[in-house]
Amino acid sequence: MNHQKPAAPVPGGGGFLRIRLDLSYDGGPFSGWAVQPGLRTVQGVLEEAIQLLVRRAVRVTVAGRTDAGVHARGQVVHLDLTEAEWLGLPRGHELDPAVAMLRRLRGALNRALGDLPGAVEVHAVTLAPEGFDARFSALWRRYSYRIADGPALWDPLERYFTLWHKNPLDVELLNQGASQLLGLQNFLSFCKPREGATTIRELQRFEFRRGEDGVIVATVQADAFCHNMVRALIGSALYVGEGAVEPGWLYERLLLQKRDAKSVLAAPHPLVLEEVAYPSDGELLARAEQTRAVRDSPAAP
Amino acid sequence: MNHQKPAAPVPGGGGFLRIRLDLSYDGGPFSGWAVQPGLRTVQGVLEEAIQLLVRRAVRVTVAGRTDAGVHARGQVVHLDLTEAEWLGLPRGHELDPAVAMLRRLRGALNRALGDLPGAVEVHAVTLAPEGFDARFSALWRRYSYRIADGPALWDPLERYFTLWHKNPLDVELLNQGASQLLGLQNFLSFCKPREGATTIRELQRFEFRRGEDGVIVATVQADAFCHNMVRALIGSALYVGEGAVEPGWLYERLLLQKRDAKSVLAAPHPLVLEEVAYPSDGELLARAEQTRAVRDSPAAP
Repeated sequence: MNHQKPAAPVPGGGGFLRIRLDLSYDGGPFSGWAVQPGLRTVQGVLEEAIQLLVRRAVRVTVAGRTDAGVHARGQVVHLDLTEAEWLGLPRGHELDPAVAMLRRLRGALNRALGDLPGAVEVHAVTLAPEGFDARFSALWRRYSYRIADGPALWDPLERYFTLWHKNPLDVELLNQGASQLLGLQNFLSFCKPREGATTIRELQRFEFRRGEDGVIVATVQADAFCHNMVRALIGSALYVGEGAVEPGWLYERLLLQKRDAKSVLAAPHPLVLEEVAYPSDGELLARAEQTRAVRDSPAAP
Repeated sequence: MNHQKPAAPVPGGGGFLRIRLDLSYDGGPFSGWAVQPGLRTVQGVLEEAIQLLVRRAVRVTVAGRTDAGVHARGQVVHLDLTEAEWLGLPRGHELDPAVAMLRRLRGALNRALGDLPGAVEVHAVTLAPEGFDARFSALWRRYSYRIADGPALWDPLERYFTLWHKNPLDVELLNQGASQLLGLQNFLSFCKPREGATTIRELQRFEFRRGEDGVIVATVQADAFCHNMVRALIGSALYVGEGAVEPGWLYERLLLQKRDAKSVLAAPHPLVLEEVAYPSDGELLARAEQTRAVRDSPAAP
């Protein structure tokens, strides 16, 4: 997919250009992604930086809203700028507007970040192709979750993004249980549901792998996630990995379709949004329309 | 090497048992290793934890004193306990004293760490073999140094232990320059010398490798390091990697045998003491005596 080509104006955008940002952040010092009055959030800092650049309040739309303490390596947002704003950013003759905005945005971000330099890094600024919507065009989101299952694996340098789990986990049991949840399912048992919205999602990957350093990394990929879904999946899987319950217990929980006292959320700090995937340029708009229709449908009975 | 076998009393130790601790720490929140009045240091926290256990002030001896902000994954210390102290730690019937001390020390450490839980982790407690000295028995120390040479590689999650270098580095140039420094040399140009002590060291490895994630990791190994030596070596090598000077410049600097305005220290936070190696048990005492003799000899002319 080539995001570098000149974009046509966004349909209905009234001459606005749609800009895509790719960014990473350390979620530790933030109260999550979404703007909240009086709290430091990633969206808040990013929008403050953009306002420093274009002298106007600009709202961004995010691919994956992350909870407090959750990190991102492959977050994607879009925002709309006027052509004057896009071309008006100070730049040398050799720079295209995207490169100019990337440089200026880095500086503005570090001003907005204050005592947290480097906690948010924008890795790419591109003119989005026609029909691009960071949230609704996405095909899938992939998260990782790091677990050091035993004190011998507890590396102080990695404690801010690794679960320190006391009991050893059996990766084979974890995968047996996790694989049964794959496919299009109603994840109500693993979601904090939103009024009137579906909890049906397509879980495409849910697997655990022990790396060379001995640390287990879970990979969880779905078309989209409902609120708390990854942490609820991991939290339940830990019971399986410890051997406290049979691997089939995860699927039994899914079939129950309810949240109860056994619904546990794993800690947020080991969770990282790694990647958001989009279809080829020609399919962006169709994908966005399809997603909007499905996501707003009421929950299945 | 088997540290589990029962140790004979330390020669001249008056019935004391010598205990070896293997530990990791995040050096970020500490004012270095060594105890300093009024400052939080790793040694200070560790000795406070040991005192909580045995109700007596116990001094520890460290393999590699680390500067403020420098981390360790493979630090080694020794301390001497009386047999009564070693056997007197509360333990279940099934636990040997080393396992009991490891568990109790973890708890005590987290009490001593206060608002920094997990910043120091003891990974092993063992009865040291006869003649063991964490500092003087060591054969070599190995450090790593992580460098992300370009904003595309700047991962906010790893910013506390990675150098964010703006300019791209040429790994081949780095290795050309570094390899010329190997061997037994006088590293005065790269050391903050100590009055009356030699600055001759044997540099055994000094190499750079770009990992799959694109980040460069330097490996520096020597029989021992004088003060600031790793950071001075890396700081100078960065000029070579940027192409600002020829690779041979590092060796020219070495031959100069003086510190001057061109002596730059790379930042401490990407530096990690990874491993300390010891000879087989039978050679420990001889190694310690040999090291003491060499280390205290005056600098060569």
